[in-house]
Amino acid sequence: MSVIRVGIIGIGAQTRENLLPSLLQIPDIHIVAACDSELERARLLRSYVKDAGNYADVGEMLDNEQLDALVMACPPQAHRDIAMQAMLRGLHVFVEKPPCFTLVELEELADMAEQQGLVTAVGLNFRFARPIQHIRSVTASHAFGRTMHVQINHYANKPRTPLWGMQSTLRSFLLAQAIHSIDLATVFGSGEIVDLYSSVQRDTESLLARIDIAFASGVSASILTGTMFPYFEFDMKVISDRSTMISLDNLWNITLHELEHATRTAGSDKRWRGAWQPSPLDSGYVRSGYLGELSGFFDAIRHQQAFEGDFASLLPTFHIIEHMCREERPTPDLQAPVFGNRPINQRVTTNAQFS
Amino acid sequence: MSVIRVGIIGIGAQTRENLLPSLLQIPDIHIVAACDSELERARLLRSYVKDAGNYADVGEMLDNEQLDALVMACPPQAHRDIAMQAMLRGLHVFVEKPPCFTLVELEELADMAEQQGLVTAVGLNFRFARPIQHIRSVTASHAFGRTMHVQINHYANKPRTPLWGMQSTLRSFLLAQAIHSIDLATVFGSGEIVDLYSSVQRDTESLLARIDIAFASGVSASILTGTMFPYFEFDMKVISDRSTMISLDNLWNITLHELEHATRTAGSDKRWRGAWQPSPLDSGYVRSGYLGELSGFFDAIRHQQAFEGDFASLLPTFHIIEHMCREERPTPDLQAPVFGNRPINQRVTTNAQFS
Amino acid sequence: MSVIRVGIIGIGAQTRENLLPSLLQIPDIHIVAACDSELERARLLRSYVKDAGNYADVGEMLDNEQLDALVMACPPQAHRDIAMQAMLRGLHVFVEKPPCFTLVELEELADMAEQQGLVTAVGLNFRFARPIQHIRSVTASHAFGRTMHVQINHYANKPRTPLWGMQSTLRSFLLAQAIHSIDLATVFGSGEIVDLYSSVQRDTESLLARIDIAFASGVSASILTGTMFPYFEFDMKVISDRSTMISLDNLWNITLHELEHATRTAGSDKRWRGAWQPSPLDSGYVRSGYLGELSGFFDAIRHQQAFEGDFASLLPTFHIIEHMCREERPTPDLQAPVFGNRPINQRVTTNAQFS
Amino acid sequence: MSVIRVGIIGIGAQTRENLLPSLLQIPDIHIVAACDSELERARLLRSYVKDAGNYADVGEMLDNEQLDALVMACPPQAHRDIAMQAMLRGLHVFVEKPPCFTLVELEELADMAEQQGLVTAVGLNFRFARPIQHIRSVTASHAFGRTMHVQINHYANKPRTPLWGMQSTLRSFLLAQAIHSIDLATVFGSGEIVDLYSSVQRDTESLLARIDIAFASGVSASILTGTMFPYFEFDMKVISDRSTMISLDNLWNITLHELEHATRTAGSDKRWRGAWQPSPLDSGYVRSGYLGELSGFFDAIRHQQAFEGDFASLLPTFHIIEHMCREERPTPDLQAPVFGNRPINQRVTTNAQFS
Repeated sequence: MSVIRVGIIGIGAQTRENLLPSLLQIPDIHIVAACDSELERARLLRSYVKDAGNYADVGEMLDNEQLDALVMACPPQAHRDIAMQAMLRGLHVFVEKPPCFTLVELEELADMAEQQGLVTAVGLNFRFARPIQHIRSVTASHAFGRTMHVQINHYANKPRTPLWGMQSTLRSFLLAQAIHSIDLATVFGSGEIVDLYSSVQRDTESLLARIDIAFASGVSASILTGTMFPYFEFDMKVISDRSTMISLDNLWNITLHELEHATRTAGSDKRWRGAWQPSPLDSGYVRSGYLGELSGFFDAIRHQQAFEGDFASLLPTFHIIEHMCREERPTPDLQAPVFGNRPINQRVTTNAQFS
Repeated sequence: MSVIRVGIIGIGAQTRENLLPSLLQIPDIHIVAACDSELERARLLRSYVKDAGNYADVGEMLDNEQLDALVMACPPQAHRDIAMQAMLRGLHVFVEKPPCFTLVELEELADMAEQQGLVTAVGLNFRFARPIQHIRSVTASHAFGRTMHVQINHYANKPRTPLWGMQSTLRSFLLAQAIHSIDLATVFGSGEIVDLYSSVQRDTESLLARIDIAFASGVSASILTGTMFPYFEFDMKVISDRSTMISLDNLWNITLHELEHATRTAGSDKRWRGAWQPSPLDSGYVRSGYLGELSGFFDAIRHQQAFEGDFASLLPTFHIIEHMCREERPTPDLQAPVFGNRPINQRVTTNAQFS
Repeated sequence: MSVIRVGIIGIGAQTRENLLPSLLQIPDIHIVAACDSELERARLLRSYVKDAGNYADVGEMLDNEQLDALVMACPPQAHRDIAMQAMLRGLHVFVEKPPCFTLVELEELADMAEQQGLVTAVGLNFRFARPIQHIRSVTASHAFGRTMHVQINHYANKPRTPLWGMQSTLRSFLLAQAIHSIDLATVFGSGEIVDLYSSVQRDTESLLARIDIAFASGVSASILTGTMFPYFEFDMKVISDRSTMISLDNLWNITLHELEHATRTAGSDKRWRGAWQPSPLDSGYVRSGYLGELSGFFDAIRHQQAFEGDFASLLPTFHIIEHMCREERPTPDLQAPVFGNRPINQRVTTNAQFS
Repeated sequence: MSVIRVGIIGIGAQTRENLLPSLLQIPDIHIVAACDSELERARLLRSYVKDAGNYADVGEMLDNEQLDALVMACPPQAHRDIAMQAMLRGLHVFVEKPPCFTLVELEELADMAEQQGLVTAVGLNFRFARPIQHIRSVTASHAFGRTMHVQINHYANKPRTPLWGMQSTLRSFLLAQAIHSIDLATVFGSGEIVDLYSSVQRDTESLLARIDIAFASGVSASILTGTMFPYFEFDMKVISDRSTMISLDNLWNITLHELEHATRTAGSDKRWRGAWQPSPLDSGYVRSGYLGELSGFFDAIRHQQAFEGDFASLLPTFHIIEHMCREERPTPDLQAPVFGNRPINQRVTTNAQFS
């Protein structure tokens, strides 16, 4: 398969700003057709790929075009339904996050992919963002030692109301935002979850979630996230048993705290640390991970291998999401007390043992 | 009492580097005498206060000198014993942290102080450090909103073996280091502890502790600390229900993330935030909190008021320390498995309900 | 002209990594053909644009293809020669920096562009990089006040030997690197140069240049640059007569120092300042300025307007470069003294009056 | 001389906040008496040193008390007059900056000190501030290489009107503020000044000065300073011929940019650098340099040696200040043009050759 023939579904902001620019610069990918319920948006693609087909109906596109793979950025119900339909037709599928609403649905998607022997991918670009790849490479090295703890602070300010026709703001937040940080925790935790503690604090409009995960590998992870922040930012730290800590600040600069860090010039001193910054011109879609996730997906297709960020890889993340949503329902006692005109802080604590 | 007559006990590094320089610049405090089991060290004080008495024996000093207050920087057993003795004689006492080993001992100290109507203080300088006073002042303001969460990252690399004749490295670490961050959590949590989760990971030499505290006030606090870091550093963040987050980095610069932060010059923009730095020449003992804690102690004596950082104020902190130590003893099952030549990561999880 | 037909000349790293990905995402641009002296490299383009022509000879491409514009990333002699040739045929031209070697050559290019009424552009992406656009927008505002000084620190570590067949390492450095910062100084200085001071220090391998420029507008600019640094970085500051200073650190974060900066939460305090960071996912070719400069060029063609970064816009920059090169020749006296095995530091100072 | 008997003159803010706390913690210094034209302020000292004499008249203090040394923080005319008087009586003298108004006066002070064989010191605490001592130590090392350039950015916002009865705001600024950065430049330049370029831009209220100095040692220094900034801050960078740059940000954190900087953990990579931060609790008067300058002065007295920051050490700094003031007088032509209601930017450029 020298050239991979791709159809794009959903020509919204995410496709136009991140996925399409990335696709255009991947060699030997032909964007054959675009589909959007608003046909005008599908037609936009012709400004970039002059002979691309355009459709308002997915079924019509799948019937008319010879495609190898789909790239989708739609609501989760569409991801789930179209992915099932496309996999039945033997197409490899890349869907933006979230791929679906529930763990049960994800299991169905993963089962179908396995049965059909197809490559799948969920667009969790953080995994592939250049600075996180850098952190992954350092923490995987022998010199770093054994990872003991991962701390992720993932600040967001939306969604503050339910998305995609759901009832639950918490599930909406977890699927739309926290999915990135929970997924990263499972990447660094690498293995079975043996203990999980989570707590959600709610205010009138926003929520704050703390998640503490213990993995069978001996790694622990803590996540502070929620919609109670003024804007999106992201920090993480990884600590090893060699007294080494690597931290990433806002996906830009990296600091490596280690014992006896030495400069060539000034030698060793207790408080020297390594600091790394990208080139001031660091940019492009490698930096944000969009090029990495899409290239990885197409490489997996070419080499007939599994892709590391496939449907199945998200199962532990959905286990955690399900668990947090299950525990969310506040008891009447907690909901009742209102002091003044503001509901009392609702705390929901979970402490589950997974085996 | 226009001049307060002070005796100093323990002329080690902490006294020489922090307490003494602070005492010398507090007006109307007379350092009357110094005591150290090595008399040579007690005599050092004469280089600063020319007529100061010097003693190798505490009882002798208490018998010979007319003192109003003691300032002590000794091992905890000495703090506890001498503080009891001095309070019986009616002296106000300032002791470096930790004041004693156990909650029971602290209760005895607090009871004695109450019975005798004396001012006491434990040297927890972080509370009084200028940048933390700044954070406390901002978070107490109406504009900040209601505090929802406090995250404290307190990196240390010692003690890695038990201190002061104790058996437990964990208790040693909690009393010598984590006491600062647990104390701060209770300052911001302000109130009864209603839920506590803690987990300690151990390596051959060092440990890593995560503590998650819920207060009756609705505030939650999470602490990441331990001896698994290359050097001492300290960061904290406070998040409010108004989507405001204030963070303090290494006790130096403060960042205020808030909705619609505006500059006078460039107006409002989603990603502007407030950043505060001290003057480049910020220094002295106000900055580190030593002057604040000592001045506060002497002011309380002068005004016959309680001092905010007295023995009783540390009771919630010692409750947490006791709880963590109680849970520490690993079950035989966890100790047994050794893979290769390195013991498996020992995780100890606690989930206590306080009432 | 709904679609602009473009030929690309020079398929080296700069084209593959920055110009091509940017071109692919500009709507209604057809890349019709590619030319490279190594035909294999020209053929690479087919992986992205399936029917693109490929050539090893520029003349052949210009004869065979219907082109509206050329985009070139070649050595300066090729830029100069091919640009002249292409403009004679009525093509708009975009060339990477530097466009040529000397001021005289640049004047010829600018004259030709004017005579032919064509749009030209030199690839000085810094001008268009998102953070610098941000700075330009703030400093142009009434609230910022009148710009008084621009300080640019542009760290580089190459070239350390002459490029492109030239004799002079200094001219090579100025044309390959400092051209960016001198160009930026003229953007902020906006106007005639009335005074120029420059000084070049040389070591065995590398050089360090300080340039101080006074503009008729009352703005001054100082540049510290050279090849004596370990890697490429870039910082700048702009100071106004309203006691406002905006600084950009490594093309990432911006700090705005202003009088009475106030946060909503903590009010005004002498040392609060505004700090701005891009989204952690900021990436793409808008960030680095490549998309901006190319889009601006094509927009200018569409709207038959001049492009702000055209050949003529670089004339003040080349005046400065010529001046610095003219002054460079060290007198024999300065070259002679060698102490030990290392030549003495050669300082060349210029103080020219322009009128 | 086991104990040094000290008199303090001028009990203003600088004495109370910085000099006195430092003096109190220097061993074997007896503060014998204090003098201030407001006797109440002199009496304040008794709160710290119970038997200190207090005077409103300097002559009376000098007559009555047995003193070895004076420490003064007064206006420059008092520094000059009292220092002369005290040196005639054989007292060692420490004066806050500035020691006097003019180069001629400084030469007289330096001559007198030499004739009398006395130790003198000017309070230029930056030289002795811990982070600058750190920079001095690194740049003096063989591994750093030969210093090529020092860049100092010294932001201030006062004085905006003349001080101490002088006519010139520029001289007031240079003596009150820029004296610190010019002094530092001469410390790193170490040697004769061979070339000097300076330029002062003025606005209605404030000024901005650029100074470029070439030293016979081959070092160059550039200073950007003035009163056009919103608050006091201070940054510096030193660049060596080994492609090493060390920078100090706001007297707090240090960054060391060097070729092939390697971390123990992640090895070498082009963009790793060394970053150094003090302990979060770094404080005291060592940090700000006040303790260092005073200790150095008293050590020099004890060891009968010259002090590195004596009157004579400031001669190059005063040469630069004189030169800048001489060049300041704008010609009538420059003063005349007023456009609208605001005077045109006055630029004064100097280019002097020193020999």
